[in-house]
Amino acid sequence: MRGAVLHAAGDVRCEQRPDPVIIEPTDAIVRAAATCVCGSDLWPYRGIDQVPRARAIGHEFCGIVEQIGDTVTVIQHGQFVIGGFLASDNTCPNCRAGMHSSCLQGVGYDGCQSELIRVPLADGTLVATPELPPKDLVPSLLTLSDVMATGWHAAVSAGVKPGMTVAVVGDGAVGLCGVLAAAQLGAEQVIAMSRHTPRQQLASEFGATDIVVERGEEGIARIKELTEGIGADAVLECVGTGDSVIQALRSTRPGGMVGWVGAPHGVELQMRDLFWRNVGVRGGPAPVRHYLPDLMDRVWNRTIDPGKVFDLDLPLEQVAEAYRAMDERRAIKVLLRP
Amino acid sequence: MRGAVLHAAGDVRCEQRPDPVIIEPTDAIVRAAATCVCGSDLWPYRGIDQVPRARAIGHEFCGIVEQIGDTVTVIQHGQFVIGGFLASDNTCPNCRAGMHSSCLQGVGYDGCQSELIRVPLADGTLVATPELPPKDLVPSLLTLSDVMATGWHAAVSAGVKPGMTVAVVGDGAVGLCGVLAAAQLGAEQVIAMSRHTPRQQLASEFGATDIVVERGEEGIARIKELTEGIGADAVLECVGTGDSVIQALRSTRPGGMVGWVGAPHGVELQMRDLFWRNVGVRGGPAPVRHYLPDLMDRVWNRTIDPGKVFDLDLPLEQVAEAYRAMDERRAIKVLLRP
Repeated sequence: MRGAVLHAAGDVRCEQRPDPVIIEPTDAIVRAAATCVCGSDLWPYRGIDQVPRARAIGHEFCGIVEQIGDTVTVIQHGQFVIGGFLASDNTCPNCRAGMHSSCLQGVGYDGCQSELIRVPLADGTLVATPELPPKDLVPSLLTLSDVMATGWHAAVSAGVKPGMTVAVVGDGAVGLCGVLAAAQLGAEQVIAMSRHTPRQQLASEFGATDIVVERGEEGIARIKELTEGIGADAVLECVGTGDSVIQALRSTRPGGMVGWVGAPHGVELQMRDLFWRNVGVRGGPAPVRHYLPDLMDRVWNRTIDPGKVFDLDLPLEQVAEAYRAMDERRAIKVLLRP
Repeated sequence: MRGAVLHAAGDVRCEQRPDPVIIEPTDAIVRAAATCVCGSDLWPYRGIDQVPRARAIGHEFCGIVEQIGDTVTVIQHGQFVIGGFLASDNTCPNCRAGMHSSCLQGVGYDGCQSELIRVPLADGTLVATPELPPKDLVPSLLTLSDVMATGWHAAVSAGVKPGMTVAVVGDGAVGLCGVLAAAQLGAEQVIAMSRHTPRQQLASEFGATDIVVERGEEGIARIKELTEGIGADAVLECVGTGDSVIQALRSTRPGGMVGWVGAPHGVELQMRDLFWRNVGVRGGPAPVRHYLPDLMDRVWNRTIDPGKVFDLDLPLEQVAEAYRAMDERRAIKVLLRP
C-alpha cells in the first residue's frame, strides 16, 4: 500500500509500505476513505519535536472495515467507521470515566496517512455510521477523528455552558472547531482571536459573535472591553505555546476556566495568573471515543459541518505539498485522499 | 482596644491599639465575638513570608455591629454578622460572577485578631444571622469567615458532585473542612490523608470514609488502591507546598480535578502531571461572601458543625501562645476571645 513516512524534519514522502495485517484478534483493518494532516504533525515536521528515525505518520482517519480479528464482535466488515487518534478498549476504569485518551490499554497507530490502517482494540476504538455516508459528509466525519473532537474537548474542559462568554485563542482548525463547539454548547458570546480573513469568516460561520485581531496585552485588553472589563468566563487555548497560554490565562475572568488542548511546548504557569485570580486550567489529549457518538449524530443530522476546516483537498501522493501548505499557513487543514 | 500585632517572625503580641473609626460612609465597626488564627497567618509568623514592619494581623471574625456609616442600609446596628477575609462590594462584575475574592473594590482589614474591626463595604461584605446566635454556635459561625468557606471552595473548585471519590491532601483545619464539604456535596468516598490521630478522628466525624497515613509515592499508590487503580475523581489541595501539590495532582485520575486553596509557596506545575493526564486545577482565595448564605443556613440548622476544628480556646491576651500552639501543631486551630 501507499503511506506517508516522515524521514526527517521537513521531509515527508508518500511511499510503498507493507500492507498491515491482523496481529491481535481484537484488531481490524480499515481502508481509509480520507485522512488528513494535524497541527500536531507539524511539531516533528518543523523539527520542534525530534525525529530520531523515519516513521509512518498521521493519526486521523475514517473509512471502510476490510477485515476484522476473531474476537471483534461489534464492528463488522463493510461498515464505515471513525476512530479517534488513539485506540482504546472502552472498558477500563479510565474509559468508563470518559477519559479514553488515558485508556489503560491505549495505543497509537502505525501511521494513518495511508491506504490501509491496522486499528487495535477495534470494538473499543471505532464507531460506525448508521449506514454508508453520502460523499459530502466524509470531510465532516473525518474531523471527528481528532480536530473537531479536540475543539469540543477544549469547550467541555473549560466548562462552557449556555449563556457564557467564551474566547478562543488560536485560529487553526482546532480553534475554529472550538468556536463551533462553544456555540453548540450554548455560549452567548464567542470571541475568536484571528487576524486572517478566511479564518475570521469561517469562525463567524461557526458561530463567533466577535473577532479580535489584537494579540498579547492588546488582545487581553480587547477581550476585557468585550466582557464588562473582567475577561471571559471560559477561554479555549488551541495553540500550545508559552505566549498563547499566557494570552488565554489573562483573558479569563477571575473564577473562570481555560480549556487547553494545544500540545504544550515551552509552557510555564505562573501562580499570579492561576491561583491568585482563581483561574483554572483543564484539558489535554481529547478522549475522542467518548465524544464520538454525540458528535457523529450532530454531523449525520447536518447540525454541524466541521468539514469546512478543510480548505485544501489533495491526493495522498501529494502529502509533501499538504505539509508545506499547512506549515506555511496557506491552508487551514488539508484532507488527503488515499 | 486590644489587638494582635505581628512585629517580626515568631513575635506576635496583644497590645493596645487605637479604636477603629468609620472612615467611609460604607464602613461598619464590629465588636468581635470571636476571632482566630489562620494557617496563612503562620507564613509570616514562620518568616516564610517577609515581615518588613510591624502590622496588625488576623482576618477572621464574627461579632456584633456597633456602628454603621451613613450609606449602610442592609446591615444594622446590633446585628450578629460574619464577614469574609476580604471586604467586597457584592455588586461589581466579579462579585456578580460569584468571585468576591476578586472584587474590583476588594480590600483587606487592618487586623481582625482584635476587639473592634473596621469593615469596609459593610453591606457587600457582612451577612447577618437570622437572630442573635446561641453561644454554642459561635465557633461554627466563625469558621464561615474563612476556614470552612475555604474548604468548601476547594470542593466546589474540584467540581465535587454526588457519587464521586474525593481525596483531601492536608489535615489542617482547611483540609478537615474540605472533608466536611466533600461529604456535604455528596461524595461517596472521601479519603483523608492524615497521620495524626485526633485529626483522623475529626476527619471521620466530618465524613471521611477512608484514612491514608502514607505520603509521597506511597500515599499516591494507596489512593490508587482505593480508587480502581486510577486515582480520585477530585482531590482537594489544602496545604500549598510543592510536595503537597504534586501529591494532589498525582492522586487524581486522568480527567479529574484538583481544587486548590493552599496558598502556593514554591509550587511548580509539570505538564506531565497536568496536560498529558488531563488533570485540571482550579481554586485560589475563596469567595467567602458567595458561599456565606448557604453555609450559614447549614450551621444555623445544625446540619454541619465545623466549629469542631477549634481544639484550643484562648483569651486574646494569649495570642502568642495561640500562634505557638498552631506552629508546633499542638492545636488544629485556635479560637481567640477578645
